[in-house]
Order: sequence, then structure tokens, then C-alpha cells
Amino acid sequence: MRRFYFDHNATTPISPQVLEVHAQVLVEVFGNASSIHHHGQSARRTLDEARAQVASLLGCGRKEIVFTSGGTESDNLAIFGAVRHRPGAHLITTAIEHPAVLRSCERLEQDGARVTYLNPDSGGAINPAQVRAAIRPETALISVMHVNNEIGSIQPLAEISRIARQAGIPFHSDGVQAAGRIPVDAAALGVDLYSISGHKMYAPKGVGALFVRKGTALDPVLFGGRHEGGLRAGTENVAGAAALGEAARLARERLEEESDRIAALRDRLETGILDRVPETRVNGAGPRVPNTTNIQFEGIEGEAIVIALDLRGFCVSSGSACSSGAVEPSHVLMALGLSKQQAKSSVRFSLGASSTEENVDALIDSVEQSAAHLRRLSPSWVSHA
Amino acid sequence: MRRFYFDHNATTPISPQVLEVHAQVLVEVFGNASSIHHHGQSARRTLDEARAQVASLLGCGRKEIVFTSGGTESDNLAIFGAVRHRPGAHLITTAIEHPAVLRSCERLEQDGARVTYLNPDSGGAINPAQVRAAIRPETALISVMHVNNEIGSIQPLAEISRIARQAGIPFHSDGVQAAGRIPVDAAALGVDLYSISGHKMYAPKGVGALFVRKGTALDPVLFGGRHEGGLRAGTENVAGAAALGEAARLARERLEEESDRIAALRDRLETGILDRVPETRVNGAGPRVPNTTNIQFEGIEGEAIVIALDLRGFCVSSGSACSSGAVEPSHVLMALGLSKQQAKSSVRFSLGASSTEENVDALIDSVEQSAAHLRRLSPSWVSHA
Repeated sequence: MRRFYFDHNATTPISPQVLEVHAQVLVEVFGNASSIHHHGQSARRTLDEARAQVASLLGCGRKEIVFTSGGTESDNLAIFGAVRHRPGAHLITTAIEHPAVLRSCERLEQDGARVTYLNPDSGGAINPAQVRAAIRPETALISVMHVNNEIGSIQPLAEISRIARQAGIPFHSDGVQAAGRIPVDAAALGVDLYSISGHKMYAPKGVGALFVRKGTALDPVLFGGRHEGGLRAGTENVAGAAALGEAARLARERLEEESDRIAALRDRLETGILDRVPETRVNGAGPRVPNTTNIQFEGIEGEAIVIALDLRGFCVSSGSACSSGAVEPSHVLMALGLSKQQAKSSVRFSLGASSTEENVDALIDSVEQSAAHLRRLSPSWVSHA
Repeated sequence: MRRFYFDHNATTPISPQVLEVHAQVLVEVFGNASSIHHHGQSARRTLDEARAQVASLLGCGRKEIVFTSGGTESDNLAIFGAVRHRPGAHLITTAIEHPAVLRSCERLEQDGARVTYLNPDSGGAINPAQVRAAIRPETALISVMHVNNEIGSIQPLAEISRIARQAGIPFHSDGVQAAGRIPVDAAALGVDLYSISGHKMYAPKGVGALFVRKGTALDPVLFGGRHEGGLRAGTENVAGAAALGEAARLARERLEEESDRIAALRDRLETGILDRVPETRVNGAGPRVPNTTNIQFEGIEGEAIVIALDLRGFCVSSGSACSSGAVEPSHVLMALGLSKQQAKSSVRFSLGASSTEENVDALIDSVEQSAAHLRRLSPSWVSHA
């Protein structure tokens, strides 16, 4: 069966160029970057080049990039690194963060920290005034994601960072769903800490990075050898870093053109579904990244649509992959004000490099047929149209 | 220049079979293992198979394997996971552990834990009686490495684990340098926690695993999605895990034959150097893994030999890669009772799959020439022979 992938927010396939760099480094540059001999020095150079490429994407200095094992580790390093050793500290974050941020905050709460979770408006945006109002003398960190993984909403980081800076509070943003999809400029955004993940931008799983603005105090989360400027112990994943570097280079090169192309396809998909499937609406339709739409199908379980579409060769998602299989409805959709039932009848479509007009149109047909079929099966569904 | 690699304890090149599996999974099995659609389920199956292969190498159950980003993270997870939330806890470890264990212990000391660091005998072995004598009522973890990375000494884990079990104390071992080199059977060794690393056994960097015996209480170090049985958040590195699985399969298949072959080569190298270079001796010549020898060259800086050999096409190491460039002499050699000067005039040779009689003999020649040259340059060196 031909398969079409519309779940790029869960993970992306590796791009051919990235694969080539990765394979070459994996074989030819196998040394330990801490070794002083030829193979070690070669690994060190490759790592330095990769760091420069990632720094270019984020508009920061090379020494401000710390390679990690992925977005979750980057988020953990930012949050625990900034807060763990400040007993009684207060954090400000949002109710719609990724679990990597939420669970880290909850762990800090168990250890005595206080956390304020801000709710977004119905479009999915946090109001900077909420952040200002939540600041306390003991606030040690503000962490607001750049782009939400389920609805794609973009947060006003530049405004929030001005507030954070005025108050002298470090500002972290989980940029895992932003990097490669919208321009990210660390200086313009004003963030002090910014997380990215390889596998959300056509690089392999198992590699990510944290931007750490020069001068930002941070404790490590993993202890051992003095790698990554003392901030992240563990033999450097040179091939992973090189792959992330190449992915960063490609993202920079293609971002503008690709984001226009994908926005047009996303709009085509969204309009197609809303036009042809009755009683559907978009969740969180505020300012969004070009590739994501989250649609509510009244009277149908989102998971049933995911399964029906899978049988027709389309990969989509209800909720985020990280909480798939969870019985609970999406915490993001609930925070937008949806009921449990509304949240559970929602589906996320996330487009990417492989998306075309043809497969978008085929997806619209399949969504229409699947929705009609599932509604016929549902004894409780009565159209209000 | 042809290059011969004798630094397998720092890192190993990826094996062709592992590379093939890795590349195939990277391209074909790109889904997020938490997604419920086709690509997600395919990733889940691949991950499960990899887990079974790693479990086979360690003689444990599949559910007892937690994939991590490498040996350092595995060590951190074992140590912080077992101890962090027990204020005033006591740990027993050794003075010759890898920095991933030592720095983690030091961090726990900063947070109020007490740590006993046991010293080895001159052969590099810890006496189990020392472990017994160090136990206190508040001892929360015993962590003793299986194989030392600098001298290759093998610790008597089975004896130590009997003592730990009698006292009801969890027992962790850093097995990064053991897995794939000597047989590892979690049941026979009696360990509760056991760390391994992909890049020390011909798999890529950026992946490792921790054996967690069923029933062992452990807290996560990285928080987020409920991956790896809730013990390790972060989208699973499926290709890395599959590569580690294949490396584990190959290790099991080849271990016996390859370890005899490499032991013979190591002995040839060691005897050759000791015979032909005056005033050399082996550091830590107790029970050792087959691939490692650590040799002291009186009157020469180890780093000078490393550089001289590098110019002749041979990669070797003074100290471990993780502390290369450090001004301090090896903490391992110091713990054996060597003076600073003796520790600094030592070189580690670690053999592996690419080692042959021919390149061992060429290495012996180059060591002889380099040592003679360096001693001629040294104004202070006077032979005592």
C-alpha cells in the first residue's frame, strides 16, 4: 500500500542530504572527539562545524550551542539547570507545554518549587500580560514554548522576553516544533535558553541542542566527562551532531520557499475538510506554523479517525505521539476550553516535505469517507447541520 | 597515511553489519514509536526486537532493558535514580570509576550524601571485603565498575553482589568496557543495575542501555513522555537501539573466538614492548579484559608518545579520552599507587576488531623508535638499566 505521512509533528523522515552526511561521518569520523590523536581531532573538527551550522540557524554564537540527546533532554537541561539548586524557586510556564517541560516542572514542585501554569486564549496564544502578572520576587525561570506541538500556535516570545529581561529572569523556550518551520533568531526572540530536536527537522532521533545564551547560569543534568563546555557529559554523538548541522543548513536554505508551499497545502487540506465534512472546526486557529491543523469532528472519536485513515494509507495523529495511548484527552485542547468529548474527537494533521497537492487531495477524500462511515456506525451521532 | 587504531576503549568504529541495520532502520523505520499508525507500530516492533537482542547479551528479560543516550546517561540514571531522593544516603564506589560515576557521586555529596571511595590493589582489583567493611545502615547504593577503562582490570562483581544482596543494598556496575569483551550475565553477576554503551561495542555514539533488574526502585533523570517504562523520557532513538541490538547479537556470536584472538595480540604487543623498550612496566596487571594494556615508559611523557605515534599513523591514548587534555595525571593510575610522574609517563593501548599481527608488529616497531627518540631528546632521562 502506498502510504502518505501527515504526522510530521510526531517525527520526520530523515532527508536524503542529511542521511548522506550522517552515514559518511558515522563511518569516516568515528573517533572520540576528546582524543588527541588524528581520529579524535577529526571528530572535534566535525563537531565544531556542526555547532557552527546549528548556531547559524538560531542566529547565535557557536559556543552558545550545547548538543544533547534530543528535545526532551534540552528541555530538562534548561529547566533543572536553571532551577534545581534554588530551593523555594518559582517558575512560570504554560498549561500547553510539551510533557518534557510539564513533567520537569512537576518534579520541581515535588522538590518544593512553585509553578504558575498560564492558560492560552481560544486561539492558542499566551498573553504576555499574563506573564508579567505572574512574576514574583522568587521567580527563577520563565518557560514558554515557541510553537505548540498539537495545534501549531506561535507564542509571542519577543514580547515575553522583554518582560523577562526587565525582571531579570532567565527565559527558556521549547522550540522543538519551530526550528526549521519558522524563522528563529535567538537575538530577536530574546530567549536565554532554546531547545531544538533533530528528528523534528529531518535529522535522526537521538540528537538535539540547547541554545544557552552567553552568561546564562546553568547546572548540568548529566555528570561525567567535561564535554560541551561542562554542561553535558557523555561522549559526543558526532554523526548525530553533523546530521543536525546539515539539517539546520538545509532548513535555513529552504525555509522561506518551503513554508509558503506547505502553508498553501495546509490551507487546502483544512478548507477541503471543513467544506466537505459537516460539523468540523479548527482548534486553536490563532497565529500558527504553516504545517499544522487540528480539527474537531463532532460525534467521532479522533482515535477512530486515525485508525480508519491508517487503513487507507494515511498517517495522522490524535493528540501528540508522546501521549498516544493515553486515556486522558489532550491537555492542550482542554486548556483551549474544549470539553473532554470535543478534545477526544479531534485530529492533528501535520504536513512536511513529502506533502503534495495530490496526496492532500487524496487525504481529503479519505477523511470525508472515513468520517461519514464512522458517523453511520455511531448510534449517538445526530447531525446538527 | 595508513592509520592503525589502538584506542578501542575510547571508542570503536561502527561494524559493517551494524551500519547496515542502522542505515536501513534510519530510512525505513522512521516513525515515532509512540504513534498508533503504521509507521509508529513498525518503529515499536523494531525497538522491541532491539531490546530483546540487548537483553540476550546481558542474560536478562526484555523489560529489564532501558535504552538511554549512552554510558554516561546510564550511569547517571542508575546513581541519581537510586539515591537522589534519599537525603543523607551513603554510597560505596571505587576511586577508579569512570567520571560518569565519580562526578555523579560528587554531585550527590554536594547535596548531602556521603560517599566511600574504595582503592584497588596494585593489580587494579577491589577486594570484596573492603565493600563489606564499608557498608553502613544508610548505604543506599554500591557502584563498582565491571572493567576499568584505563587498565582493563576486571572486578569481582559476583562476590560483591553477594555482599550487597545480603545487606539488601542495590548494586550498580558500569559495564561500558565489559559488554562485548567478556561474558556478561546479569544473573550470574548478581547486579541490579548495569550500564552499557553502544560506541564501545561497534555501534554508533548516542545510544546505550541500562539493565534494571525487575523490582529495582528507580527514579528517572529525564522527565517528559512516558517512554521506556516511565524511566527515560524522550522519543526513542529507534535506529540507535536497533544498531545496539545488532551489535549485541554480533558480540554474543563472536565473543569467544574474538576474545582469544585479541588476547593473543595484546600479549604479543605487551611482550614486544616490554622486551624491546627498556624500563617499561605494565600498570595494573591483575585479571584484565583481553584487549587492554597500560604501559609505563620511564622518563617519557605519555602524551609525547601519543603524539609521536600519531605522526607514525597509530592512534593510542594516555589516560582516558574523557579526561584527555586534562593537566592532572590519571586518577586510576594514582589509585594503583603510581607517582604523578609515573602516571604521566603511561600509555594505554586498546585493541579491537581491526587489530592484526601485522599492525601489532608495526606498532611495536614504532613504539620502540618513538621511545628511543623521545628519550634522546630528554635531558633528564638516565637509564637505570
